Amino acid sequence: MHFDAIETPFGKTDKIIGGAGTYISLSASYFASEVNLISVVGDDFPAEYIKLLESKNIDTKGLQIKKGEKSFFWSGKYKNDMNSRDTLVTELNVLENFDPIVPAEYANADFLMLGNLSPQVQLQVIERMKKRPKLIAMDTMNFWMNICMDDLKKTISKVDVLIINDEEARQLSGQYSLKVAAGIILGMGPKYVIIKKGEHGALLFGEGKQFYAPALPLEEVFDPTGAGDTFAGGFIGYLAKVNSTEFADLKNAIIMGSAMASFCVEKFGTEKLLDLNNDIIYQRVREFIELVNFDYTIK
Amino acid sequence: MHFDAIETPFGKTDKIIGGAGTYISLSASYFASEVNLISVVGDDFPAEYIKLLESKNIDTKGLQIKKGEKSFFWSGKYKNDMNSRDTLVTELNVLENFDPIVPAEYANADFLMLGNLSPQVQLQVIERMKKRPKLIAMDTMNFWMNICMDDLKKTISKVDVLIINDEEARQLSGQYSLKVAAGIILGMGPKYVIIKKGEHGALLFGEGKQFYAPALPLEEVFDPTGAGDTFAGGFIGYLAKVNSTEFADLKNAIIMGSAMASFCVEKFGTEKLLDLNNDIIYQRVREFIELVNFDYTIK
Repeated sequence: MHFDAIETPFGKTDKIIGGAGTYISLSASYFASEVNLISVVGDDFPAEYIKLLESKNIDTKGLQIKKGEKSFFWSGKYKNDMNSRDTLVTELNVLENFDPIVPAEYANADFLMLGNLSPQVQLQVIERMKKRPKLIAMDTMNFWMNICMDDLKKTISKVDVLIINDEEARQLSGQYSLKVAAGIILGMGPKYVIIKKGEHGALLFGEGKQFYAPALPLEEVFDPTGAGDTFAGGFIGYLAKVNSTEFADLKNAIIMGSAMASFCVEKFGTEKLLDLNNDIIYQRVREFIELVNFDYTIK
Repeated sequence: MHFDAIETPFGKTDKIIGGAGTYISLSASYFASEVNLISVVGDDFPAEYIKLLESKNIDTKGLQIKKGEKSFFWSGKYKNDMNSRDTLVTELNVLENFDPIVPAEYANADFLMLGNLSPQVQLQVIERMKKRPKLIAMDTMNFWMNICMDDLKKTISKVDVLIINDEEARQLSGQYSLKVAAGIILGMGPKYVIIKKGEHGALLFGEGKQFYAPALPLEEVFDPTGAGDTFAGGFIGYLAKVNSTEFADLKNAIIMGSAMASFCVEKFGTEKLLDLNNDIIYQRVREFIELVNFDYTIK
């Protein structure tokens, strides 16, 4: 959970609230009855935003607030096509020495989502759970592949679902074909890999099966920041809601994640995620069904 | 119909047979009971290949063979990612003065597919039909946008379905968002636009609706040459088979086109398209259904 300063072709923000923990927990809160947050911020992080998360039924006992320290800060500028961005500023601050606390109330959770962070911290969280969750999903990024591939592979070997984008899947596997890449990644330990392709949708591989979830064609992508985390939150939140790790439910969970991500990009930061409701979400899911549905009895 | 010399990371060919007319008619021949070919070649084009097409029930009365002239020739080299290619040689030869002949037996056809060629020639074919077909589809490319946009727009205004790739849709519309681009292109006259996104599938827009057909994740793309034409051939061939222009059938036709294109890229040139059959094709279609099918009663 941290501050972002974002510039897109459509506008520019001062420091606004972002971070994997924020997007994941907000998105999951629309599905799961309990969302437990593990993160760290400085005392510059606004108390009213934490209250806002709590009002969404997000438990913050696992959120450490470091007195006299500053929250992580990232600043970036998106290019005109919105598919690539330049990082302008990265200040680690409290993340430099993050020692995650897993409160006793969280330690028996059935569904665990590890947002993008150092694989060592992600592994610590897994090790500090009292029992092995039914399903552990994790996100990561090329940064960790560049600086600590061995640690990353160790953490990947402990999870059930790896969620990464196409470029990361290619870097992690050394293969261009996403199907071949998926095979190699599955060989690293996870039962499933989800490869996110932005405006081109997402692929799920596992159990010898594959699933292609489309992305909704959008008139404009206002700000892509947080879309991947929002996807992950919808994914894990839906699985927690239906309490399942079946392949059929993983597919539905990806549709939910895609629907949530399609909201996220419509406004800056978390703005759009703050006032959704079931009617709006299921209307969007129906648009996804319309988008891909064809006559399976094809002549 | 012409010669291609292709180099991909997997190998290299001498002059092999290619061309929009070849791929489209071969692909369509697996669906439509009659396929009528309009094209032009030089007398260097092998007679036995023409016999091969005829053996696939492709009528070649509309194929002109120019004595003492040479067929069109293209040579290109694909980059490692297979998504872009450099043109090494283009020899127009017989295409320079192509005056398309529409035999009387073709002039009442219900389904017309205009392969990529100058929009003036495409328009001549439309004008030489005796009655307006039920459905006219056309392909084009950025080359014609650069050199004769006005002629191109005139031809586009006369067709029902424009089939182009994402880059071409962006150039034609001047818009990055494919949804916005589709809206602008529909404003140019066609009822439908299909935007092909290669390994990311294809989008159909029209009647205020949208459809996203995935592409099958492939272990390797051996040679992408002709994939777009093979798609178009499967699309128009299927519509001719079911004799329909309904939106639901356009969706199925896109699945058929996608299935046919997924075969095309598995070998060099037209090789893979020469020995398919219904069992193989419908097995591939079932893989597409598996790929996108999810529980529409999502909780």
